[in-house]
Amino acid sequence: MQDDSDILKRIGSKIKALRLEKGMSQEELAEKSGVDRTFIGGLERGERNVSVMTLCDILRGLKYQIQTFFSHL
Amino acid sequence: MQDDSDILKRIGSKIKALRLEKGMSQEELAEKSGVDRTFIGGLERGERNVSVMTLCDILRGLKYQIQTFFSHL
Repeated sequence: MQDDSDILKRIGSKIKALRLEKGMSQEELAEKSGVDRTFIGGLERGERNVSVMTLCDILRGLKYQIQTFFSHL
Repeated sequence: MQDDSDILKRIGSKIKALRLEKGMSQEELAEKSGVDRTFIGGLERGERNVSVMTLCDILRGLKYQIQTFFSHL
């Protein structure tokens, strides 16, 4: 079994990387996903737990599937 | 892009299937994962949103990785 203790940090780093790949600011991602910018900031730093539905909203803003997201995490 | 509207139903069905494969009751999974049995019941029915950390707790109780879980969803 893999250790899950760093899962939030890995999720945050991956979201930040996908956002930067698309040349988007946190503000733009917040607008596209309907999720507060400060939440996205905390999530990218690995400081926030996130629900599946909110993660889907953010990933939709990045045009990325949740299945693909986790399989490449 | 895949429609995410049924993601909670798919997560719930998959958790239930994994639990039954292991011959575990909801009560046993609740005890192993430290997550309330009524929450697990609602999640299995697709009625509850779930955070990444709680999902990790439940999957740990099922000895299943979150990456594998989503890639087979």
